Amino acid sequence: MSGRGRFITLEGGEGTGKSTQARRLAQALRRRGLSVVETREPGGSPGAELLRAVLLEAPAECWDAMSEALILSAARRDHLATTIRPALARGDWVVCDRFADSTLAYQGFGHGVDPATLEQLYDLAVGPFGPDLTLVLDLDPQVGLERAKARGAETRFEHLDIGYHHRVHMGFIDIVAREPERCAMISAAGDEETVEGRILAAVEARMAEWSADADAVEGADGPVAD
Amino acid sequence: MSGRGRFITLEGGEGTGKSTQARRLAQALRRRGLSVVETREPGGSPGAELLRAVLLEAPAECWDAMSEALILSAARRDHLATTIRPALARGDWVVCDRFADSTLAYQGFGHGVDPATLEQLYDLAVGPFGPDLTLVLDLDPQVGLERAKARGAETRFEHLDIGYHHRVHMGFIDIVAREPERCAMISAAGDEETVEGRILAAVEARMAEWSADADAVEGADGPVAD
Ligand SMILES: Nc1ncnc2c1ncn2[C@@H]1O[C@H](COP(=O)(O)OP(=O)(O)OP(=O)(O)O)[C@@H](O)[C@H]1O
Ligand SMILES: Nc1ncnc2c1ncn2[C@@H]1O[C@H](COP(=O)(O)OP(=O)(O)OP(=O)(O)O)[C@@H](O)[C@H]1O
Ligand SMILES: [Mg+2]
Ligand SMILES: [Mg+2]
Repeated sequence: MSGRGRFITLEGGEGTGKSTQARRLAQALRRRGLSVVETREPGGSPGAELLRAVLLEAPAECWDAMSEALILSAARRDHLATTIRPALARGDWVVCDRFADSTLAYQGFGHGVDPATLEQLYDLAVGPFGPDLTLVLDLDPQVGLERAKARGAETRFEHLDIGYHHRVHMGFIDIVAREPERCAMISAAGDEETVEGRILAAVEARMAEWSADADAVEGADGPVAD
Repeated sequence: MSGRGRFITLEGGEGTGKSTQARRLAQALRRRGLSVVETREPGGSPGAELLRAVLLEAPAECWDAMSEALILSAARRDHLATTIRPALARGDWVVCDRFADSTLAYQGFGHGVDPATLEQLYDLAVGPFGPDLTLVLDLDPQVGLERAKARGAETRFEHLDIGYHHRVHMGFIDIVAREPERCAMISAAGDEETVEGRILAAVEARMAEWSADADAVEGADGPVAD
Protein backbone atom coordinates (compact mmCIF):
# COMPACT_ATOMS: atom_id res chain seq x y z
CA MET A 1 0.00 0.00 0.00
CA SER A 2 1.20 3.48 -0.86
CA GLY A 3 2.76 5.34 2.04
CA ARG A 4 1.29 8.73 1.27
CA GLY A 5 -2.35 9.74 1.56
CA ARG A 6 -4.48 10.26 -1.50
CA PHE A 7 -7.08 12.86 -2.41
CA ILE A 8 -10.36 11.25 -3.53
CA THR A 9 -13.40 13.24 -4.65
CA LEU A 10 -17.01 12.15 -5.13
CA GLU A 11 -18.97 13.86 -7.85
CA GLY A 12 -22.35 13.61 -9.54
CA GLY A 13 -25.75 15.27 -9.80
CA GLU A 14 -28.35 15.88 -7.10
CA GLY A 15 -29.26 12.94 -4.92
CA THR A 16 -26.84 10.51 -6.58
CA GLY A 17 -25.55 9.50 -3.13
CA LYS A 18 -22.29 11.46 -2.89
CA SER A 19 -22.64 12.35 0.80
CA THR A 20 -23.83 8.83 1.70
CA GLN A 21 -20.98 7.18 -0.17
CA ALA A 22 -18.31 9.65 1.00
CA ARG A 23 -19.14 8.64 4.57
CA ARG A 24 -19.09 4.93 3.68
CA LEU A 25 -15.82 5.22 1.76
CA ALA A 26 -14.11 7.06 4.62
CA GLN A 27 -15.22 4.31 7.01
CA ALA A 28 -14.00 1.57 4.70
CA LEU A 29 -10.59 3.24 4.40
CA ARG A 30 -10.41 3.62 8.17
CA ARG A 31 -11.12 -0.09 8.56
CA ARG A 32 -7.98 -0.62 6.50
CA GLY A 33 -6.06 1.33 9.14
CA LEU A 34 -5.80 4.57 7.16
CA SER A 35 -6.21 8.01 8.69
CA VAL A 36 -8.97 9.77 6.73
CA VAL A 37 -10.21 13.37 6.63
CA GLU A 38 -13.81 13.73 5.37
CA THR A 39 -14.62 17.09 3.86
CA ARG A 40 -16.96 18.73 1.36
CA GLU A 41 -17.44 21.56 -1.09
CA PRO A 42 -18.49 24.25 -1.11
CA GLY A 43 -17.02 24.60 2.37
CA GLY A 44 -14.59 22.42 4.27
CA SER A 45 -12.71 25.23 6.03
CA PRO A 46 -13.97 28.08 8.23
CA GLY A 47 -13.53 30.69 5.48
CA ALA A 48 -15.02 28.48 2.78
CA GLU A 49 -18.03 27.67 4.97
CA LEU A 50 -18.72 31.44 5.22
CA LEU A 51 -18.77 31.57 1.42
CA ARG A 52 -20.98 28.46 1.27
CA ALA A 53 -23.49 30.31 3.44
CA VAL A 54 -23.35 33.34 1.11
CA LEU A 55 -24.09 31.07 -1.87
CA LEU A 56 -26.81 29.00 -0.24
CA GLU A 57 -28.59 31.71 1.73
CA ALA A 58 -28.79 34.25 -1.08
CA PRO A 59 -31.98 34.21 -3.17
CA ALA A 60 -31.73 31.64 -5.98
CA GLU A 61 -31.18 34.20 -8.75
CA CYS A 62 -28.87 36.50 -6.78
CA TRP A 63 -25.63 35.42 -8.47
CA ASP A 64 -24.92 34.80 -12.09
CA ALA A 65 -23.07 31.55 -12.80
CA MET A 66 -19.68 33.20 -13.34
CA SER A 67 -19.94 35.05 -10.01
CA GLU A 68 -20.78 31.71 -8.39
CA ALA A 69 -17.71 30.19 -10.04
CA LEU A 70 -15.55 33.00 -8.63
CA ILE A 71 -16.95 32.52 -5.12
CA LEU A 72 -16.53 28.73 -5.40
CA SER A 73 -12.93 29.25 -6.53
CA ALA A 74 -12.13 31.46 -3.55
CA ALA A 75 -13.69 28.86 -1.26
CA ARG A 76 -11.75 26.06 -2.99
CA ARG A 77 -8.44 27.87 -2.62
CA ASP A 78 -9.07 28.34 1.10
CA HIS A 79 -10.31 24.77 1.54
CA LEU A 80 -7.13 23.45 -0.09
CA ALA A 81 -4.79 25.69 1.91
CA THR A 82 -6.51 25.18 5.25
CA THR A 83 -7.82 21.60 5.18
CA ILE A 84 -6.79 19.44 2.23
CA ARG A 85 -3.09 20.20 1.74
CA PRO A 86 -2.29 20.04 5.48
CA ALA A 87 -4.08 16.66 5.71
CA LEU A 88 -2.15 15.25 2.75
CA ALA A 89 1.10 16.67 4.18
CA ARG A 90 0.43 14.69 7.38
CA GLY A 91 0.00 11.55 5.27
CA ASP A 92 -3.78 11.43 5.76
CA TRP A 93 -6.23 10.40 3.07
CA VAL A 94 -8.84 12.98 2.06
CA VAL A 95 -12.36 12.07 0.93
CA CYS A 96 -14.17 15.11 -0.44
CA ASP A 97 -17.90 15.37 -1.22
CA ARG A 98 -17.88 17.44 -4.48
CA PHE A 99 -14.92 19.41 -5.84
CA ALA A 100 -13.98 21.32 -9.00
CA ASP A 101 -15.81 18.97 -11.39
CA SER A 102 -19.08 20.17 -9.85
CA THR A 103 -18.21 23.75 -10.85
CA LEU A 104 -17.55 22.60 -14.41
CA ALA A 105 -20.74 20.50 -14.55
CA TYR A 106 -23.10 22.98 -12.84
CA GLN A 107 -21.79 26.44 -13.76
CA GLY A 108 -20.23 25.27 -17.04
CA PHE A 109 -22.42 22.60 -18.65
CA GLY A 110 -25.56 23.50 -16.67
CA HIS A 111 -25.45 27.30 -16.86
CA GLY A 112 -23.32 27.85 -19.93
CA VAL A 113 -20.09 29.39 -18.59
CA ASP A 114 -17.33 28.56 -21.10
CA PRO A 115 -15.35 25.51 -19.86
CA ALA A 116 -12.10 27.19 -20.99
CA THR A 117 -12.90 30.15 -18.73
CA LEU A 118 -13.49 27.80 -15.80
CA GLU A 119 -10.20 26.06 -16.54
CA GLN A 120 -8.33 29.38 -16.48
CA LEU A 121 -10.04 30.27 -13.23
CA TYR A 122 -8.98 26.94 -11.71
CA ASP A 123 -5.39 27.59 -12.79
CA LEU A 124 -5.45 31.04 -11.18
CA ALA A 125 -7.12 29.93 -7.94
CA VAL A 126 -5.54 26.50 -7.45
CA GLY A 127 -2.70 25.90 -9.91
CA PRO A 128 -1.33 22.48 -10.87
CA PHE A 129 -3.03 20.31 -8.26
CA GLY A 130 -6.05 18.03 -8.34
CA PRO A 131 -7.62 14.83 -7.02
CA ASP A 132 -5.80 11.51 -7.32
CA LEU A 133 -9.13 9.81 -8.00
CA THR A 134 -12.60 11.12 -8.77
CA LEU A 135 -15.61 8.83 -8.39
CA VAL A 136 -18.47 10.10 -10.53
CA LEU A 137 -21.84 8.74 -9.42
CA ASP A 138 -24.02 8.18 -12.45
CA LEU A 139 -27.79 8.16 -12.16
CA ASP A 140 -30.81 9.25 -14.20
CA PRO A 141 -31.28 12.88 -13.04
CA GLN A 142 -35.00 12.29 -12.45
CA VAL A 143 -34.26 9.43 -10.04
CA GLY A 144 -31.62 11.51 -8.25
CA LEU A 145 -34.04 14.42 -7.80
CA GLU A 146 -36.65 12.04 -6.38
CA ARG A 147 -34.12 10.61 -3.92
CA ALA A 148 -33.12 14.14 -2.89
CA LYS A 149 -36.77 15.15 -2.51
CA ALA A 150 -37.52 12.09 -0.39
CA ARG A 151 -34.63 13.16 1.87
CA GLY A 152 -36.62 16.34 2.59
CA ALA A 153 -34.15 19.22 2.48
CA GLU A 154 -34.64 21.32 -0.64
CA THR A 155 -31.41 22.15 -2.42
CA ARG A 156 -30.74 25.31 -4.33
CA PHE A 157 -30.68 23.49 -7.69
CA GLU A 158 -34.00 21.71 -7.33
CA HIS A 159 -36.02 24.66 -8.59
CA LEU A 160 -34.24 24.44 -11.95
CA ASP A 161 -35.91 22.60 -14.82
CA ILE A 162 -35.07 18.97 -15.60
CA GLY A 163 -33.23 20.08 -18.76
CA TYR A 164 -30.69 21.77 -16.53
CA HIS A 165 -30.09 18.56 -14.60
CA HIS A 166 -29.69 16.63 -17.84
CA ARG A 167 -27.01 19.11 -18.99
CA VAL A 168 -25.21 18.67 -15.67
CA HIS A 169 -25.41 14.89 -16.08
CA MET A 170 -23.96 15.11 -19.59
CA GLY A 171 -21.24 17.35 -18.17
CA PHE A 172 -20.13 14.68 -15.71
CA ILE A 173 -20.11 12.07 -18.49
CA ASP A 174 -17.95 14.39 -20.58
CA ILE A 175 -15.52 14.93 -17.68
CA VAL A 176 -15.03 11.18 -17.19
CA ALA A 177 -14.55 10.69 -20.93
CA ARG A 178 -11.86 13.40 -21.05
CA GLU A 179 -9.98 12.23 -17.95
CA PRO A 180 -10.28 8.44 -17.71
CA GLU A 181 -7.01 8.23 -15.75
CA ARG A 182 -8.31 10.36 -12.91
CA CYS A 183 -12.01 9.51 -13.01
CA ALA A 184 -14.07 6.37 -12.52
CA MET A 185 -17.72 6.27 -13.53
CA ILE A 186 -19.78 4.45 -10.90
CA SER A 187 -23.39 3.43 -11.47
CA ALA A 188 -25.42 4.86 -8.60
CA ALA A 189 -28.41 2.60 -9.32
CA GLY A 190 -29.19 -0.02 -6.70
CA ASP A 191 -29.10 0.16 -2.93
CA GLU A 192 -26.39 1.84 -0.83
CA GLU A 193 -24.44 -1.40 -0.25
CA THR A 194 -24.43 -2.21 -3.96
CA VAL A 195 -23.09 1.24 -4.86
CA GLU A 196 -20.53 1.03 -2.05
CA GLY A 197 -19.33 -2.30 -3.44
CA ARG A 198 -18.72 -0.69 -6.86
CA ILE A 199 -16.88 2.20 -5.25
CA LEU A 200 -14.62 0.00 -3.13
CA ALA A 201 -13.77 -2.11 -6.17
CA ALA A 202 -12.78 1.02 -8.11
CA VAL A 203 -10.76 2.41 -5.19
CA GLU A 204 -8.99 -0.89 -4.61
CA ALA A 205 -8.06 -1.12 -8.29
CA ARG A 206 -6.47 2.35 -8.04
CA MET A 207 -4.75 1.53 -4.78
CA ALA A 208 -3.13 -1.47 -6.43
CA GLU A 209 -1.87 0.80 -9.24
CA TRP A 210 -0.60 3.36 -6.74
CA SER A 211 1.27 0.68 -4.80
CA ALA A 212 2.80 -0.67 -7.99
CA ASP A 213 3.83 2.88 -8.99
CA ALA A 214 5.28 3.50 -5.53
CA ASP A 215 7.21 0.20 -5.65
CA ALA A 216 8.49 1.05 -9.13
CA VAL A 217 9.64 4.46 -7.91
CA GLU A 218 11.28 2.96 -4.83
CA GLY A 219 12.92 0.29 -6.98
CA ALA A 220 14.19 2.93 -9.40
CA ASP A 221 15.40 5.20 -6.63
CA GLY A 222 16.92 2.39 -4.58
CA PRO A 223 20.23 1.97 -6.36
CA VAL A 224 20.92 5.68 -6.90
CA ALA A 225 19.71 7.19 -3.63
CA ASP A 226 22.10 7.44 -0.64
CA MET B 1 -21.62 68.34 -22.16
CA SER B 2 -21.57 64.66 -23.04
CA GLY B 3 -25.01 63.07 -23.14
CA ARG B 4 -24.07 59.77 -21.60
CA GLY B 5 -23.14 59.17 -17.98
CA ARG B 6 -19.57 58.45 -16.96
CA PHE B 7 -18.06 56.01 -14.51
CA ILE B 8 -15.69 57.77 -12.08
CA THR B 9 -13.76 55.92 -9.37
CA LEU B 10 -11.90 57.28 -6.33
CA GLU B 11 -8.82 55.41 -5.22
CA GLY B 12 -6.01 55.75 -2.72
CA GLY B 13 -4.72 54.41 0.58
CA GLU B 14 -6.33 54.41 4.02
CA GLY B 15 -7.75 57.72 5.19
CA THR B 16 -6.85 59.64 2.05
CA GLY B 17 -10.40 61.00 1.89
CA LYS B 18 -12.00 58.79 -0.78
CA SER B 19 -15.38 58.48 0.94
CA THR B 20 -15.44 62.18 1.86
CA GLN B 21 -14.58 63.26 -1.67
CA ALA B 22 -16.87 60.74 -3.38
CA ARG B 23 -19.78 62.33 -1.52
CA ARG B 24 -18.61 65.84 -2.39
CA LEU B 25 -18.05 64.97 -6.05
CA ALA B 26 -21.48 63.39 -6.38
CA GLN B 27 -23.05 66.55 -4.91
CA ALA B 28 -21.05 68.80 -7.23
CA LEU B 29 -22.17 66.78 -10.26
CA ARG B 30 -25.78 66.94 -9.08
CA ARG B 31 -25.50 70.71 -8.80
CA ARG B 32 -24.67 70.63 -12.50
CA GLY B 33 -28.01 68.89 -13.10
CA LEU B 34 -26.59 65.41 -13.56
CA SER B 35 -28.20 62.29 -12.16
CA VAL B 36 -25.56 60.52 -10.02
CA VAL B 37 -25.38 57.10 -8.40
CA GLU B 38 -22.96 56.91 -5.47
CA THR B 39 -21.59 53.47 -4.75
CA ARG B 40 -18.57 51.72 -3.24
CA GLU B 41 -16.40 48.62 -3.22
CA PRO B 42 -16.25 46.07 -1.88
CA GLY B 43 -20.05 46.08 -1.98
CA GLY B 44 -22.46 48.27 -3.89
CA SER B 45 -25.06 45.58 -4.62
CA PRO B 46 -26.93 43.18 -2.31
CA GLY B 47 -24.79 40.19 -3.29
CA ALA B 48 -21.53 42.13 -3.15
CA GLU B 49 -22.40 43.53 0.29
CA LEU B 50 -22.75 39.92 1.55
CA LEU B 51 -19.22 39.26 0.31
CA ARG B 52 -17.98 42.53 1.85
CA ALA B 53 -19.27 41.26 5.20
CA VAL B 54 -17.46 37.93 4.70
CA LEU B 55 -14.21 39.81 4.01
CA LEU B 56 -14.53 42.35 6.80
CA GLU B 57 -15.98 40.14 9.53
CA ALA B 58 -13.53 37.26 9.12
CA PRO B 59 -10.43 37.32 11.34
CA ALA B 60 -7.67 39.43 9.77
CA GLU B 61 -5.55 36.46 8.67
CA CYS B 62 -8.44 34.24 7.52
CA TRP B 63 -7.96 34.74 3.78
CA ASP B 64 -4.78 34.77 1.78
CA ALA B 65 -4.47 37.69 -0.65
CA MET B 66 -5.37 35.65 -3.75
CA SER B 67 -8.55 34.33 -2.09
CA GLU B 68 -9.42 37.93 -1.22
CA ALA B 69 -8.85 38.89 -4.85
CA LEU B 70 -11.22 36.11 -5.98
CA ILE B 71 -13.91 37.22 -3.52
CA LEU B 72 -13.44 40.87 -4.54
CA SER B 73 -13.75 39.85 -8.20
CA ALA B 74 -17.00 38.01 -7.59
CA ALA B 75 -18.32 41.04 -5.73
CA ARG B 76 -17.15 43.37 -8.53
CA ARG B 77 -18.86 41.32 -11.22
CA ASP B 78 -22.12 41.44 -9.27
CA HIS B 79 -21.73 45.15 -8.48
CA LEU B 80 -21.24 45.92 -12.17
CA ALA B 81 -24.15 43.76 -13.33
CA THR B 82 -26.58 44.91 -10.66
CA THR B 83 -25.69 48.54 -9.97
CA ILE B 84 -23.12 50.15 -12.25
CA ARG B 85 -24.08 48.98 -15.75
CA PRO B 86 -27.82 49.59 -15.22
CA ALA B 87 -27.04 53.11 -13.95
CA LEU B 88 -24.86 53.90 -16.97
CA ALA B 89 -27.50 52.38 -19.27
CA ARG B 90 -30.04 54.87 -17.83
CA GLY B 91 -27.60 57.70 -18.62
CA ASP B 92 -26.69 58.26 -14.94
CA TRP B 93 -23.22 59.12 -13.75
CA VAL B 94 -21.60 56.70 -11.31
CA VAL B 95 -19.19 57.78 -8.56
CA CYS B 96 -17.57 54.76 -6.94
CA ASP B 97 -15.51 54.75 -3.71
CA ARG B 98 -12.72 52.24 -4.57
CA PHE B 99 -12.70 49.84 -7.52
CA ALA B 100 -10.29 47.41 -9.19
CA ASP B 101 -7.19 49.57 -8.65
CA SER B 102 -7.55 48.93 -4.93
CA THR B 103 -7.28 45.18 -5.57
CA LEU B 104 -4.12 45.74 -7.58
CA ALA B 105 -2.62 48.09 -4.97
CA TYR B 106 -3.60 46.12 -1.83
CA GLN B 107 -3.55 42.45 -2.88
CA GLY B 108 -0.96 42.99 -5.63
CA PHE B 109 1.59 45.61 -4.54
CA GLY B 110 0.82 45.31 -0.83
CA HIS B 111 0.57 41.52 -0.44
CA GLY B 112 2.60 40.34 -3.42
CA VAL B 113 0.02 38.72 -5.72
CA ASP B 114 1.44 38.91 -9.26
CA PRO B 115 -0.13 41.89 -11.09
CA ALA B 116 -0.42 39.77 -14.26
CA THR B 117 -2.52 37.25 -12.33
CA LEU B 118 -4.80 40.03 -11.10
CA GLU B 119 -5.13 41.32 -14.65
CA GLN B 120 -6.19 37.87 -15.90
CA LEU B 121 -8.67 37.62 -13.06
CA TYR B 122 -10.13 41.02 -13.99
CA ASP B 123 -10.49 39.86 -17.60
CA LEU B 124 -12.30 36.69 -16.49
CA ALA B 125 -14.59 38.41 -13.99
CA VAL B 126 -15.29 41.70 -15.77
CA GLY B 127 -13.97 41.68 -19.33
CA PRO B 128 -13.24 44.77 -21.40
CA PHE B 129 -14.83 47.44 -19.25
CA GLY B 130 -13.44 49.97 -16.82
CA PRO B 131 -13.79 53.46 -15.35
CA ASP B 132 -13.84 56.53 -17.59
CA LEU B 133 -11.85 58.43 -14.98
CA THR B 134 -10.01 57.36 -11.83
CA LEU B 135 -9.06 59.96 -9.24
CA VAL B 136 -6.17 58.69 -7.14
CA LEU B 137 -5.85 60.53 -3.82
CA ASP B 138 -2.21 60.85 -2.94
CA LEU B 139 -1.09 61.26 0.67
CA ASP B 140 1.76 60.21 2.92
CA PRO B 141 0.51 56.82 4.26
CA GLN B 142 1.37 57.86 7.83
CA VAL B 143 -0.86 60.94 7.57
CA GLY B 144 -3.67 58.87 6.05
CA LEU B 145 -3.50 56.31 8.84
CA GLU B 146 -3.65 59.11 11.41
CA ARG B 147 -6.70 60.63 9.71
CA ALA B 148 -8.35 57.19 9.67
CA LYS B 149 -7.49 56.61 13.32
CA ALA B 150 -8.88 60.03 14.31
CA ARG B 151 -12.13 59.00 12.56
CA GLY B 152 -12.41 56.18 15.07
CA ALA B 153 -13.48 53.08 13.15
CA GLU B 154 -10.58 50.65 12.83
CA THR B 155 -10.17 49.25 9.35
CA ARG B 156 -8.93 45.78 8.52
CA PHE B 157 -5.67 47.09 7.06
CA GLU B 158 -4.63 49.20 10.01
CA HIS B 159 -2.99 46.31 11.86
CA LEU B 160 -0.52 45.90 9.01
CA ASP B 161 2.92 47.48 9.30
CA ILE B 162 3.67 50.84 7.73
CA GLY B 163 5.86 49.12 5.10
CA TYR B 164 2.69 47.53 3.75
CA HIS B 165 0.99 50.91 3.42
CA HIS B 166 4.04 52.30 1.64
CA ARG B 167 3.90 49.45 -0.89
CA VAL B 168 0.21 50.18 -1.47
CA HIS B 169 1.03 53.86 -1.95
CA MET B 170 3.75 53.02 -4.50
CA GLY B 171 1.22 50.72 -6.20
CA PHE B 172 -1.20 53.61 -6.75
CA ILE B 173 1.62 55.80 -8.10
CA ASP B 174 2.55 52.99 -10.51
CA ILE B 175 -1.06 52.62 -11.67
CA VAL B 176 -1.32 56.35 -12.49
CA ALA B 177 2.01 56.26 -14.29
CA ARG B 178 0.90 53.33 -16.46
CA GLU B 179 -2.54 54.71 -17.30
CA PRO B 180 -2.29 58.51 -17.45
CA GLU B 181 -5.26 58.70 -19.84
CA ARG B 182 -7.64 57.11 -17.37
CA CYS B 183 -6.13 58.31 -14.09
CA ALA B 184 -5.55 61.66 -12.44
CA MET B 185 -3.29 61.97 -9.43
CA ILE B 186 -4.81 64.33 -6.86
CA SER B 187 -2.88 65.59 -3.86
CA ALA B 188 -4.94 64.78 -0.76
CA ALA B 189 -2.98 67.19 1.43
CA GLY B 190 -4.87 70.23 2.72
CA ASP B 191 -8.42 70.58 3.94
CA GLU B 192 -11.48 68.95 2.39
CA GLU B 193 -12.42 72.03 0.33
CA THR B 194 -8.90 72.32 -1.08
CA VAL B 195 -8.90 68.65 -2.15
CA GLU B 196 -12.40 69.01 -3.58
CA GLY B 197 -11.22 71.98 -5.64
CA ARG B 198 -8.44 69.87 -7.17
CA ILE B 199 -10.88 67.05 -7.93
CA LEU B 200 -13.43 69.31 -9.58
CA ALA B 201 -10.71 70.88 -11.70
CA ALA B 202 -9.59 67.41 -12.86
CA VAL B 203 -13.14 66.27 -13.54
CA GLU B 204 -14.01 69.45 -15.45
CA ALA B 205 -10.91 69.04 -17.61
CA ARG B 206 -12.04 65.51 -18.52
CA MET B 207 -15.62 66.61 -19.10
CA ALA B 208 -14.37 69.16 -21.60
CA GLU B 209 -12.43 66.42 -23.41
CA TRP B 210 -15.44 64.11 -23.38
CA SER B 211 -17.67 66.84 -24.85
CA ALA B 212 -15.11 67.57 -27.53
CA ASP B 213 -14.88 63.84 -28.34
CA ALA B 214 -18.66 63.55 -28.43
CA ASP B 215 -18.92 66.60 -30.73
CA ALA B 216 -16.21 65.16 -32.97
CA VAL B 217 -18.05 61.84 -33.18
CA GLU B 218 -21.34 63.59 -33.90
CA GLY B 219 -19.65 65.78 -36.48
CA ALA B 220 -18.08 62.76 -38.14
CA ASP B 221 -21.32 60.79 -38.09
CA GLY B 222 -23.41 63.75 -39.18
CA PRO B 223 -22.97 63.58 -42.93
CA VAL B 224 -23.46 59.80 -43.21
CA ALA B 225 -26.16 59.09 -40.63
CA ASP B 226 -29.69 60.04 -41.63
N1 LIG C 1 -28.28 3.80 -3.33
C1 LIG C 1 -29.32 4.48 -2.83
N2 LIG C 1 -30.58 4.09 -3.08
C2 LIG C 1 -31.62 4.80 -2.60
N3 LIG C 1 -31.51 5.91 -1.86
C3 LIG C 1 -30.26 6.35 -1.59
C4 LIG C 1 -29.11 5.67 -2.06
N4 LIG C 1 -28.01 6.34 -1.64
C5 LIG C 1 -28.46 7.40 -0.93
N5 LIG C 1 -29.81 7.39 -0.90
C6 LIG C 1 -30.68 8.38 -0.28
O1 LIG C 1 -30.91 9.37 -1.26
C7 LIG C 1 -30.88 10.66 -0.68
C8 LIG C 1 -29.73 11.44 -1.33
O2 LIG C 1 -28.48 10.85 -0.96
P1 LIG C 1 -27.23 11.79 -0.65
O3 LIG C 1 -27.64 12.92 0.23
O4 LIG C 1 -26.11 10.91 -0.22
O5 LIG C 1 -26.98 12.32 -2.13
P2 LIG C 1 -26.07 13.51 -2.59
O6 LIG C 1 -25.51 13.12 -3.91
O7 LIG C 1 -25.11 13.87 -1.52
O8 LIG C 1 -27.16 14.66 -2.79
P3 LIG C 1 -26.90 16.25 -2.96
O9 LIG C 1 -26.46 16.42 -4.37
O10 LIG C 1 -28.24 16.86 -2.72
O11 LIG C 1 -25.87 16.63 -1.94
C9 LIG C 1 -30.66 10.45 0.81
O12 LIG C 1 -31.93 10.46 1.45
C10 LIG C 1 -30.03 9.07 0.89
O13 LIG C 1 -30.31 8.41 2.12
N1 LIG D 1 -8.69 66.83 3.56
C1 LIG D 1 -8.84 66.32 4.78
N2 LIG D 1 -8.12 66.80 5.83
C2 LIG D 1 -8.25 66.27 7.04
N3 LIG D 1 -9.09 65.28 7.36
C3 LIG D 1 -9.83 64.77 6.36
C4 LIG D 1 -9.75 65.25 5.03
N4 LIG D 1 -10.60 64.55 4.26
C5 LIG D 1 -11.19 63.64 5.06
N5 LIG D 1 -10.73 63.79 6.32
C6 LIG D 1 -11.09 63.00 7.48
O1 LIG D 1 -10.19 61.89 7.49
C7 LIG D 1 -10.89 60.71 7.84
C8 LIG D 1 -10.77 59.74 6.67
O2 LIG D 1 -11.50 60.23 5.55
P1 LIG D 1 -12.34 59.26 4.64
O3 LIG D 1 -13.14 58.32 5.47
O4 LIG D 1 -13.06 60.06 3.62
O5 LIG D 1 -11.11 58.49 3.98
P2 LIG D 1 -11.13 57.17 3.13
O6 LIG D 1 -10.07 57.33 2.10
O7 LIG D 1 -12.50 56.88 2.66
O8 LIG D 1 -10.68 56.13 4.25
P3 LIG D 1 -10.76 54.50 4.16
O9 LIG D 1 -9.62 54.10 3.28
O10 LIG D 1 -10.56 54.07 5.58
O11 LIG D 1 -12.12 54.18 3.60
C9 LIG D 1 -12.33 61.12 8.14
O12 LIG D 1 -12.46 61.33 9.52
C10 LIG D 1 -12.48 62.41 7.38
O13 LIG D 1 -13.45 63.28 7.98
MG1 LIG E 1 -24.75 15.70 -0.55
MG1 LIG F 1 -13.69 55.18 2.92
